[in-house]
Formats: sequence, C-alpha cells, structure tokens
Amino acid sequence: MQERNRILSVAAGNLLKKDDIKKVIALLDKLHPADAAEVVSSLPEENQKRIFETWDVPHAADALQEMDESEQIDIVDLLSTPLVSDIMEEMAADDVADLLGGLDKQDAERILTAMNREDAVEVLRLMQHKEDTAGGIMTPEFIALRKDMTAQESIDLLREKAPDAETVYYIFIVNKENQLVGVISLRDLIIAKADQRIEEIMNPNVIYVDVDTDQEEVARIMSRYDLLAVPVVDYEHHLLGIVTIDDVVDVIEKEASEDIYRLGGVTREERLDSPAMESIRNRLPWMSFNLLTASFAAGVVYLFRGTIDNLVILAAIMPIVAGTGGNMGTQTLAITIRGIALGQLEFREGMRVVARQVGIGATIGATTGLLAAIIASFTSRNPFLGLVLFLAMIINMGIGGLVGAGFPIVLRLLGRDPALGSGVLVTAFTDVFGFLTFLGLATLMLGLLI
Amino acid sequence: MQERNRILSVAAGNLLKKDDIKKVIALLDKLHPADAAEVVSSLPEENQKRIFETWDVPHAADALQEMDESEQIDIVDLLSTPLVSDIMEEMAADDVADLLGGLDKQDAERILTAMNREDAVEVLRLMQHKEDTAGGIMTPEFIALRKDMTAQESIDLLREKAPDAETVYYIFIVNKENQLVGVISLRDLIIAKADQRIEEIMNPNVIYVDVDTDQEEVARIMSRYDLLAVPVVDYEHHLLGIVTIDDVVDVIEKEASEDIYRLGGVTREERLDSPAMESIRNRLPWMSFNLLTASFAAGVVYLFRGTIDNLVILAAIMPIVAGTGGNMGTQTLAITIRGIALGQLEFREGMRVVARQVGIGATIGATTGLLAAIIASFTSRNPFLGLVLFLAMIINMGIGGLVGAGFPIVLRLLGRDPALGSGVLVTAFTDVFGFLTFLGLATLMLGLLI
Repeated sequence: MQERNRILSVAAGNLLKKDDIKKVIALLDKLHPADAAEVVSSLPEENQKRIFETWDVPHAADALQEMDESEQIDIVDLLSTPLVSDIMEEMAADDVADLLGGLDKQDAERILTAMNREDAVEVLRLMQHKEDTAGGIMTPEFIALRKDMTAQESIDLLREKAPDAETVYYIFIVNKENQLVGVISLRDLIIAKADQRIEEIMNPNVIYVDVDTDQEEVARIMSRYDLLAVPVVDYEHHLLGIVTIDDVVDVIEKEASEDIYRLGGVTREERLDSPAMESIRNRLPWMSFNLLTASFAAGVVYLFRGTIDNLVILAAIMPIVAGTGGNMGTQTLAITIRGIALGQLEFREGMRVVARQVGIGATIGATTGLLAAIIASFTSRNPFLGLVLFLAMIINMGIGGLVGAGFPIVLRLLGRDPALGSGVLVTAFTDVFGFLTFLGLATLMLGLLI
Repeated sequence: MQERNRILSVAAGNLLKKDDIKKVIALLDKLHPADAAEVVSSLPEENQKRIFETWDVPHAADALQEMDESEQIDIVDLLSTPLVSDIMEEMAADDVADLLGGLDKQDAERILTAMNREDAVEVLRLMQHKEDTAGGIMTPEFIALRKDMTAQESIDLLREKAPDAETVYYIFIVNKENQLVGVISLRDLIIAKADQRIEEIMNPNVIYVDVDTDQEEVARIMSRYDLLAVPVVDYEHHLLGIVTIDDVVDVIEKEASEDIYRLGGVTREERLDSPAMESIRNRLPWMSFNLLTASFAAGVVYLFRGTIDNLVILAAIMPIVAGTGGNMGTQTLAITIRGIALGQLEFREGMRVVARQVGIGATIGATTGLLAAIIASFTSRNPFLGLVLFLAMIINMGIGGLVGAGFPIVLRLLGRDPALGSGVLVTAFTDVFGFLTFLGLATLMLGLLI
C-alpha cells in the first residue's frame, strides 16, 4: 500500500467513527479510482458497506472495477442485489462477466435478472467464453466502421459516438456481414480526403486473434507486433470485440508471477503482506509433499547404509552430487519455463531441446566433476573415489538437464501448465538419483575404495 | 521462430543463391517489420549485408528497429557509416539512443557525426539518461498543446501534424515555459465547443514520472493506473517526453525473465535455442561456484564423520533436514522477489517481513517436523532421534525463511537487484545449516541416541 493511501485510510477510519461519511466520500472522489479502491479495501467490512451504500453509483463502479476479484466478491456479498446490479450496469461488460464468473451461480443469476436487459445480454454473451482466452479478456465496447463509408462520414460517426481514449487508437473495418476486413489509424483517417471511401484507405492486412486463442498467446502477439489493441473474431470472421493492451499487461504480470511461484514451489498465490496463518495454510500441503519426496531420498541413502558404514566419507561427498545436479535441474527448468512462456519452443523440437539440455548437463557435469574428482582423489588419497564422484556427477547433471527440460515440455505437450513441474519436483529427482548413482557406483566399486 | 518465417527464411536463402535480391526484398516488404527482422536475422551475415545495402532506407529502419540489441549491433558492424546514419535518421530517436549506447564509443561518435544535426542532437539528449530510467525509455516524439489554445486550434494542429497512432491517445498540456499542467483525451477535445480554451476542459491532475524514475517503477505506475502513456518531466516540471505502453510491456517481460533466471540460478540470459557451447560457457562459472558451496556442505558433514560412524542412520535422515529447509528457502525467495517486483514491500517494513517469514518457516518446520519425528522415532525405535530431527527441522526451516526473505530485502536496501540472492545461494545456506544443526544436535545427544 502506498504511504499516502495508508494515511488516507487512517483519516477515513477516524471520520467514520464520527459518522462523517459524507466527508469520507468527498475525500475518495478526489482520488484516482485505483487509490480509492485501495483505501476502501483497507477499511473494516461494515465501513465498506456504509460507503458503497452512500456513494454515487458511477464512482462506486469505478472503484469496484479496480479491485482484485477476491476483494470485489467480498464487497458484492455485503450489498443488496438491486444496488449491486445498478453498480454493475456502470462497469465494463468484460469486468462484470469476470466478476459474476467468480460468484455462486445463484447469486450471479439474481444479479443478472436485476440488471437492465441490454447490459445483461452483453454480459451473458461474454460469460460464454473461457476466462483465460481472447474471448474472456476482450471488451465488446468498441467502434467499427463499415468499409463503404467515406472518410468524412467516419469522422462524423466517431465524433458522435465520442469514443473512450481506450478504444480509438485503431479503428477496425467490417463489411455488411460484420466480418473483419481491415484496420485504419486515426492518423490516416484524418489525412484522407473527405469523400474517399474507407475501403480505399484502410490496411487490409489486419492482425487478429480467434475468440478461443489462449490469453498468453494473445499477449505474445500484441507484444511481438507492438499492438495497442487486437481484434477478436469468431470462426466465420465476425468481429466480436477487441483486446486492449492494458488487459494484456495484467495477463503478462499474472503469468510471470505464476511461473515464479511455481519455480519456487509456491502453489497458491501469496503476498508478502498476507497474514502468517494464511501463508502457513497455503504452504503446508506442499511442504508435506516435499517431506514425502525428501523421505524417498533418505530411503535411498538408507538402502546403502552398509556401504556408508564401511566408508563414512561417502556421506560427506554425496551432498555434492545431489546439490550440483539439483542446481543444473533448476537452471534448466528456469530457461525452459521462460522459453515456453516467450514462445521460443516449437513442439516438434521438444525432444531435440531435451536432448540438448541432457548434453549440456552431462558436459558441465564432466567439467566440474573432473575438478571435484581431482580434489577428492588427493584429499582421500584414493583415485577410485574421485572416479566414482566424476561418473556420478556426469550422470546426475545429465538427469538434471533431463528433468529440468523434460518436465515442463511434457506437461506442455499434455496441455497442462508447463510450470507445474516445479523446482521441488526437479530437485526431488536429482536428490534421489544423485544418491542412487553415487552410492550405487561406490557399492559396486567398494573393493577398490576401502 | 514461427513456422511461416522459417519457410520464408529458406525461400530467401534460395533466392539469394540465384542472386535474386530484388525478389527477396519484395518478399520482405510484404511482411510485418517484426517478421522481416526475424527472417533477415536468420540469414548468413553476407546476405544480411547485401539485403541492407539494397533495401530502401525506411523499410530497413523499420526492420532494424524490431531486432534485439545484439542483432542490431551485428548488422551495424556489417554496414558503412553513411548507410547506418541514413537508416538511423529514419528510426525513433529513443531506439537510436539505445542502440548507440551499445556500440563502441568511437563507432557511436562516427555515426552521430554523419547524421543530420537535428536528429543527432535529439539522440544525444536522450543518451544522457540512464537506459533503465524513464528518461532512457521515453520518446521525445509527441505532441503537446498549450493551455491557452482553443479546442478548434488544437484539433487543427493535431490534423496538421498528423500524429502517429502511437502518441495520440492522451494529449498533454503545457504552459508557456513548457511545464506540464494537464492532460486531455481526444474524446474530450472532440466534444468540446470550438472556442473553449484547453485550460477550461483539461484535467489538471495528471499522473507523471520524473526523468530518473526507475523503469520498473514506471511500469508499476502505468499498470496500476491503466495508462497508455505517461509524461516524463525534469525537476523544474518541464515536459521532456512520454513513455508509451508498448515500451513498458518490454520492460515487464524483461524484468520477469530476469527474476525467473536469477531464481533458477541462471546469471546470463539464455534462450532455449541458444547453441549448446554458448549455454555451457554461460553456466560453467556459476556451476563452479555451486561446486564450492556444495563443498562447504560436504565439509560440514565431514566434520561430523565420527558421529555418523557411530550411527549411520543419521546419514540417511540428514537430507530430509537439508531438503525441506531448502524448499522453504526457495518458496520464501520466490514470494519475496515477486513481492518486491510488484511493489508490495515498503522498506521500513523490511525487518518485520523477514521476522514473519522466519516465524512461518519455524511453524511449518514444527508441523512437518512433528510428523517426521513420529515416523523416525517409530522406525528407529528411538524417540531421541525423533527429537533431534524435530528440533533441526524447526531451526533449518526458520533459516530458510530468514535467508529466503533476508537476501533479497537486504540486497534491495543496498540498492542491488533483489534477485541476485538466487536460489543457489539460499539452498547453499540451508544445506550447510541443515547438516550443521542436525548433526550438531545429534553429536550433543549422542549418548541418548546409541
């Protein structure tokens, strides 16, 4: 929370104690909706309720729109259905569709019934699309021009409809069947002669996305071609809506967060300022799973307890094999997850990429393993111990490359989130296989080692 | 690389073998500059040279602008100074400034001297700003209106200057001293009466950034307030330029990549399709460092070889303590790095955040540790072994919380990249301290254990 908003939040709390709700609302109305939303969210529930019940509807809608979905749901639960439906009529239809998608089905239906028919139909149409597709993030609020209009007619239409700054950077052109046929910039429209037909001046090579294109793919396309908006079409090429860059910024940030959390083994979103109990509840299941994988590694060592009993230095060296293999695995995982997110990977190349990472892992294993082996041979005065370490590091760092690249690529091929094969799983593998190869080889060569 | 571009690349290569450079250029001119750039980059150097020497300058500039900085530098090195300066005159000044900043000082000066004076001065002015600040990513190519103009005069000016789609979503307003005083949307300008003065219709509450604001902070502000462009001012509030959303998308993606790589222990950017030798060269120094930290952990175990010799099951259990502590550390690291990137952290809260993460770590350590202790007590028929494991897991998972949150927060306070305290360093700590606490406690209580 920003410092200023924290102070405002305290001030609002004090004013509310004195029942001075009018002053609080006057104060909120002077803020940017994103800041007003933050201040309101920080207040106790009963005060949130009082504010929303007194606030004028358009300002309340602006603030609600800026909140996280979970905060929105909390507010909606506090308010009466007629008030909620009034507020939602003022919100952007795509935001309403997202919010209703997060509510109980019955609550959503009750609110939709209370909304005016036109808005409700638009929201319902949007709710048919999956939330993480182009259809789920597009807005139907845009202006399209018909290709047989003249430049002057077009400018007059734009002037009359007084578009938002948000939707006017590109103007998309459709034919009589509402099929997308071109795009024109405001610049070209302004320069054009008044009686020129749009058809003659538009750019017919318009970059578009299908309604069920994954939102990450939409983000990649907009980022690649530096687009501020991209049109969304159905399978008959009808123009359904546009995705604007600000929604895509949210997608990029959310997907990056997800990848970072998964890589670190965090399965549910958690903020630095989340309550401690919530953090513990979130992480405990995954840590219990980690206890299980760590127990496998312990089991492998236990299998070889006889070998360690014969040569206790093995217990000191085995963490080197496990640790370097784990590091190779997480390095490869980070590169692969990011590579997939940035669209560097083509599927038919999948196996070649994995093979290359295995090769890279084994080569680095051989290089660092040689160094480690020389040191181990000299300190233990036993070259065979060095040989075991050398071989185990090659194998285990190869395995690090295999699982680090293989997990996310296979998950992606199966249509799952590539980051599910998180750092914890990768290091569980390299721990188990590190102990297995090192202690296994040592057991085979035990006669030479002692 | 996209499938279509790969095919085009092969086609271009074949045409060039037949010396049919005109056809290649005709083919490139039909593509989006981002695609043309990708196709050209995939060709051998001598062909890149031939294409750029034949290409018309505006198309060459468009394509060059879309390349990565390293690709741009390779192209510039192939071409003559007069040709490079011609191309650069056609490029956006901020892109030229970035590119020249990446060249040798002498080369940059030679190119600047060959450019026309006006463009060179603009580029030089931009080059004074650090690359990762608002000044470094802003464009000076925008249109500002004076507050004493009328709405009609403003529209006429916009029409005459025929702005790019890129820079017209908001129009910023200045006074006679070129100080930023307001903002107006095209929508409000169009609706206004012809003789109304801008001053009366503009919004004086304009969100801006200072010229030396860090680019990550610029991205946070634009994302928070859903801005398409933000004005950049100097310390006397003079309007210097604007940062547009497409540049910020690049910043967000780059910063997310950096965090992911650092978390995975990758210090230099690496692509999935990088040549294997390059990957090995990149990763080898860091893996050698990892070998060193793993050797510390091995050294700790070696110190306690006597204890392990007495009770070999300790060698099997110790990876559980190290592994769960390491996992707690990377979880906490992921949450902290992302929290800092998303601006959730305030500095005066730093120590409180670390303390909370230590508490979370120790609590989860106690919970999973109790489970592990019960199992260990029963399988080994020795409750004291369970007690040692329980205590070691509490301590080491607390340490995981400490280093996972502490490293990035301290680095941030020192003004360094918080992600430098990467996963490898964190797990090195939890390995060393995990073995130390577990084997240390076991040594202290050895009388009760055997």
